[in-house]
Parts: sequence; C-alpha cells; structure tokens
Amino acid sequence: MPQISEMGKIIPASPIRKLVPYADQAKEKGIKVYHLNIGQPDIETPPIALEAVRNMKLSVIEYTPSGGNHTLKVKLAGYYQHLGINIHEEDILITTGGSEAILFAFMSTLNPGDEIIIPEPFYANYTAFAVMTGVKVKTVTSTIENNFALPPISEIEKLITPATKGIVIINPNNPTGYLYSKEELEELAKIIKKYDLYLYSDEVYRRYCYDGLKHFSVMNLPGIEQNVVLFDSMSKRYSECGIRVGAIITRNREILATALKFGMARLCPPALGQIAAEASLDTTDEYFENVYNEYIERRDFMVEALNKMPGVICPKPKGAFYSIVKLPVDDADRFAKWLLEDFSYNGQTVMVAPASGFYHTSGLGKNEVRIAYVLKISELKKAMETLAQALKEYPGAQQA
Amino acid sequence: MPQISEMGKIIPASPIRKLVPYADQAKEKGIKVYHLNIGQPDIETPPIALEAVRNMKLSVIEYTPSGGNHTLKVKLAGYYQHLGINIHEEDILITTGGSEAILFAFMSTLNPGDEIIIPEPFYANYTAFAVMTGVKVKTVTSTIENNFALPPISEIEKLITPATKGIVIINPNNPTGYLYSKEELEELAKIIKKYDLYLYSDEVYRRYCYDGLKHFSVMNLPGIEQNVVLFDSMSKRYSECGIRVGAIITRNREILATALKFGMARLCPPALGQIAAEASLDTTDEYFENVYNEYIERRDFMVEALNKMPGVICPKPKGAFYSIVKLPVDDADRFAKWLLEDFSYNGQTVMVAPASGFYHTSGLGKNEVRIAYVLKISELKKAMETLAQALKEYPGAQQA
Ligand SMILES: Cc1ncc(COP(=O)(O)O)c(C=O)c1O
Ligand SMILES: Cc1ncc(COP(=O)(O)O)c(C=O)c1O
Repeated sequence: MPQISEMGKIIPASPIRKLVPYADQAKEKGIKVYHLNIGQPDIETPPIALEAVRNMKLSVIEYTPSGGNHTLKVKLAGYYQHLGINIHEEDILITTGGSEAILFAFMSTLNPGDEIIIPEPFYANYTAFAVMTGVKVKTVTSTIENNFALPPISEIEKLITPATKGIVIINPNNPTGYLYSKEELEELAKIIKKYDLYLYSDEVYRRYCYDGLKHFSVMNLPGIEQNVVLFDSMSKRYSECGIRVGAIITRNREILATALKFGMARLCPPALGQIAAEASLDTTDEYFENVYNEYIERRDFMVEALNKMPGVICPKPKGAFYSIVKLPVDDADRFAKWLLEDFSYNGQTVMVAPASGFYHTSGLGKNEVRIAYVLKISELKKAMETLAQALKEYPGAQQA
Repeated sequence: MPQISEMGKIIPASPIRKLVPYADQAKEKGIKVYHLNIGQPDIETPPIALEAVRNMKLSVIEYTPSGGNHTLKVKLAGYYQHLGINIHEEDILITTGGSEAILFAFMSTLNPGDEIIIPEPFYANYTAFAVMTGVKVKTVTSTIENNFALPPISEIEKLITPATKGIVIINPNNPTGYLYSKEELEELAKIIKKYDLYLYSDEVYRRYCYDGLKHFSVMNLPGIEQNVVLFDSMSKRYSECGIRVGAIITRNREILATALKFGMARLCPPALGQIAAEASLDTTDEYFENVYNEYIERRDFMVEALNKMPGVICPKPKGAFYSIVKLPVDDADRFAKWLLEDFSYNGQTVMVAPASGFYHTSGLGKNEVRIAYVLKISELKKAMETLAQALKEYPGAQQA
C-alpha cells in the first residue's frame, strides 16, 4: 500500500477538534456535554444576514470572482474606512474563511525553511498552515503570570536569524484573550522595519475588546505599509462561522496578486456565504451592544467562578472570548479526555481544549486549558459547577 | 520590501481566469462577451436546492464538522450505492469544492519531489495543486487526431521512476470531453497494482456521458481498493459551482484520517453550501433528462458549427461539456486576448480558454482552445457566428 505523506504525518490534529469522537461517545451515553472547547458562539447570526440568505435571488448558484464579489469588497472597504483604517477594495482578497487567508498569505510570501515568530500560546491551526508551507515556527512565550502580555521585544529580536521572514500577531488573542496595546505594536513595528519582515496580523476578534479598551490595528502603523498582511474573518464578528468568508487585507499589491493566483486555483470563495457576509456588514450597533453586554456578563461570571475553585487561575481577558486557565491537574490533555470518557455530574460534563496544543514549545501548558465563554450564562453556570465537581473527583488532581 | 515566495512566482495564473480583466474591459466598452472559457453552466440549479437554501432554518450559522455534515455524507453514500458503487459514509470526507479535495489528497499522500503522471491536456488547476504540494507533474500526451483517447499504457509505464507515486485521471475529461472506457481503466489498474501507485480519479463530470455511453468508475476496479482516491464535486452535477462542496472518496481510511487533519486546520466546509448539496441529492431524473438533452443539443450544434469553419477541427466530446478545438491561428493565447481587446462583431465577442494552459509540455496546444458549451443554443449560435467572423479578421490567421 502506498504511503501517507510526511506532511500528513506531522500535521497536528486540531487540539480543539481532536477530542470530538470522545464527546460524541459521551453524548451517545446520554450525557449532556457543555462545549467550552470551540470558538463557536451560540450568539444568533444577525437577522439581516439570515434574511439575505433566505431571500437570495440566484437561480444559478455560480462561481463568483476568485477574489470575491466586487460588491462585498467595496462594502468591506467601507467598513474599514468607518473604523478609521484607510483600506480600499483593491487591498482586499476575499477568502474561504480567515483560515484560507492565512494559508494563501503564507504560501504567497514564505519559502520552505523560512522562519516565522509567533508569541505562544497561539491559535493552534497556525502550526498546520506553517506545516503546509514548510515553514518553521519559533516562539516567544507569554505567561499567565504576566496576563499573556507581549514578551519584551528584545526576546523576539534574539530569535531573528537570516531565515526569519515574518512575525505573527493575533490581536485580540486566541487563546489568551490578550489585547495588544498601541505601544506594544509600535515596538513591534520597529523590528519589522529594522529587519524588513512581514507582519501578519490576525484581527478576526477585533470587535471584541472590553473594559473600554480600544483596538489598535497594525494597518495604522506608519512606515511598514508594504510589510503588513491582515487576516480578517466574518466568522466571529457576526457569529456566522459556517459561512466560510474571510479576507486578506494588504496594501502590498504584489502579495495580493500572488494570493489571487492561489485563489484562482480553487476557483472562488463560497457564493452563499458571500451573500450573508455582505448583508452582515449592515448589522446594527444595537446588535453589537447586546452581544458585547452578553460577553462581558459571561466573562465576568466565568472568571469569578473559575478563580473561586481551589488551585485554579484565570486571568481576565481583555478581548475575544477565550481564556487560558490554569488547573490543578497533572496533565490537562488527560483531564480533558477523562472529562468526556469517565466523568459526569448530574448527567453532564464539559469539553475543554487542552492548552498544550496552543503552545509550540513542548511541555508548556501541561496544566492549562483554553475555555471559550460561548455559552449562555445559564449553561455556563452549569458548566462551571460541573467543572468544579470534576476537579474534586479527578484522580490526577494536584495541589498547586 | 520582503519578497514573494518561490511558489507564488511559479504557480500559474489560471488559463481560464487570467484573461478576465480583458473581458471586463471589453464589457466596459459595451461589448457583449460570450463566455465559452469557463465551466460555469447557465443551467438552473435544481429548484429543490434553491428552496432548501431559502428555507434554511438555522438561526446561528455554525461551523459544521470538519469532515462535513453527517447527514450529507450518509446521503452521498446512498447516491453512490444507487450508482452501483459500494461506498459508505466513512469513506467520505466533504471538502470545500472538488478543488480542496485535490489539494488535501495530494498533501496527504505526496511528498515534495514525488512525481505524478497525468495525461495531457488536463484541467489546468492540477498544476497549481501540484506546485502547492511540491510535486512534479509528468505527462503522456493525448492527441486531437486520436480524439484524446488514453495513450498506450506502455507510454505511461515508460515515465514511471522510483519517484512516481500516482496517476491522475479525469473522467470524463476536462478539457477534452473524452470518456475513458472500462478497458482503458482496467489497463491502467494493472500498472497501478504493479507499481503500487495511487490512482487519483476525478469524476466530477460523471453525470455527463453521451451517446448511450456509460460511465465506469475506478471505484469498481477490483484489487486496487486501497490505491484509489476519488475526487467528486457538486459544482457541475447540480449546476451549483458557487456552493463550494466536493468530496474525497476513498476506502483507504489512513488517507481519509490524514486528510481530515488538513480539514480540521481549515475548520469546516461551507455550512450553507452543504444545505444546498444535501437537498440536491434529491434532484429528479426529469431535471437531469432536460439537462442531458440540452447539452446534447448544444454539443451537436457547436461541433457542427465549428467543423464548418475553414481550418477548424472539433472532435465530438463523449462527456463533460468541453471540447478542445484546433483553430487556424498562429497563437491561441494571442488570439484569445485579441478577441477581447481588439475585436467585436455586431457589438459582440467571445471569450475562450487558450489550450496551452491545459498542456504541461510547453509548446503544445499553441493553436488550440478549450470551448465550454455552457450557453443556451440561441447564445451559442451568436457566439459561433462571432467566432467565425473573428477567424476571418484575425491578423494572425493561418492556413491549416
Ligand atoms: C485567531 C483566529 N484566526 C483565524 C481563525 C479562522 O477562522 P475562520 O476560518 O472561521 O475565519 C480563527 C478561528 O477560530 C481564530 O481563532
Ligand atoms: C476536472 C475538474 N476537477 C475539479 C474541478 C473543481 O471544481 P469545484 O472546486 O468547483 O468542485 C473542476 C472545475 O472546473 C474540474 O473541471
């Protein structure tokens, strides 16, 4: 029998999704599973988007242009301008989710053997896209003790070699919920400029900044316009992860023209998703206020509930809807599996994402999990009770 | 400024899409462009699929499972069983179009430096997916004189080296419209078995076989079950190219498990598209009869019209909705561009895909184009008149 590829062997199974079969087994046994593992909000998709899909007028669902519908690009540019980010439709390539934006940008700009630097923990699928591009990931480690702030720039600079081609920043961060300050980003810009690197900035959680903090986009850093590549997505902003619409935004036309060739090869992003996306851009401020309030309430509730549990540490996230949480367990991977395989409390259990998969340095995050606060307060409450009970019962519990 | 990647430099712009800017310019001048360049049928999407989208009940458009919705897989397995192909839901991975099926299958099974053999001319985007995987394409050439039949197996065997890992077959073929016979495929199976290669079979045009010929799937070749990887797509079968739903079908579970890891990295195929796809599988036989009759009428009309033009040769395609057509021109690339830039007849012009992009061997297909008969007879008629006139006026016209 012919062999699986080397890439196929080393590409990691998603830490968020690899336990799904265990969750399915638990559900089959009649256990209610609270999904805190995945960034799949239960927030309703804006009605305006749902209506656009239901009223769609197409009688032939055709390929769209490879770079996305013109009308969507124009509207998305308007969205940026409204945010004070000077972007035009020609700076935009519509992709099949933010996921494809990352892959196409990496493939357009990086060669096998090149190195990129990412502060860890980071959104795990970057590792997969780096593997697909043959690129080596190097990391600086942000720590729970320091609320996952950007490590000193000097530490990043130490990692730079002639093979280094870019730095990835996820802002607000998944999985830490950290929001980078303007000052941190300006520091970063200096070394981007000094070494002429790419700055890949993942801003798919831009809409979710809390406590009066304002999001600052790397698009507004002067002097590195040709170096910045932004990843955007409709998934989280409009709670429509399934439409699969995202974008590469860059003022570097050469990158965009190159990414378009990859885009032509796969023909086009989803036509129906683009209909939803275009309509979503008219979402009312009222919708967002409700969503904002909802997330704040969930976050505050969760952070408090977690920090009350003996040995548990949960920093207060400033953005997105995740937190990295330290648990008094021997091995969070084992704990997460145990929750699904061997535990239930009042017929319920919780699914969490072991944090090890978000760290690149092996051995890190061993007693941390990522929790997504994507459930209604009433459910989150039960999930927290269940988790507290699980920590009491877990055979591998450890004193912190 | 940092550099574009090597891959980004060598990945070819799609021969079908690269002339789009010229078409747009022609349209801006008020010229009506008949699109014979792209496999985008004007056939109406089955009403049952359109209705399913319009009636969709989701209030949160969530991520689906990475391998696609279970209900869709079950129904697709039923479709195969109905065709006499013994496939189960566990043999299926739903992808974002057939395009992604090709990419994931290549990445799951091939290493950089590996070789695959494809009879040329072939669907051009295979070159892009091979580039993305770092794989070398070798070709045997099928010829217009021989109606694009599979070249003798001995010629394929001559190309096999220790680096050869697989053979790709597109059946029915794009761009030639050739339908491989059971006998040809059995011959192919022998060398697949002899050298233990992968057989990638692209059957996205399975539904379109003419003149009473029956499609034979490589899935029904005994003895190479673990070697066969099928690419399928809803795009062409249900005239819903924009939904972006396809599939990898294989009985080789290791390939499917590996491809799923790539699938997890990009999260999921389009949720809305999967709703359309699932409904499409209930399309009535009556719909297909109408479509079939329509294509036969178009094909026969087009083949006759083309062969009447002096110096033009158009073989009669047995499947799909394309034909490679030989034209009395110096350079089909130049001709295709000229049609859009410098020509119009009664305010009309035609867009064709130069065939050179479908050949891997450089220099081949220089006076051939691919024509897709995806327009209504009334439009096809005007397109043919326009093409005939263009051949009279084209400065680079040549006597055959
Ligand atoms: C930081 C980050 N970037 C990108 C993505 C990709 O999302 P999508 O492909 O749905 O746009 C995600 C999804 O969770 C994410 O968390
Ligand atoms: C032979 C062949 N395979 C695969 C595809 C990919 O189609 P899609 O990604 O729309 O399923 C096409 C599209 O034209 C094709 O012609």
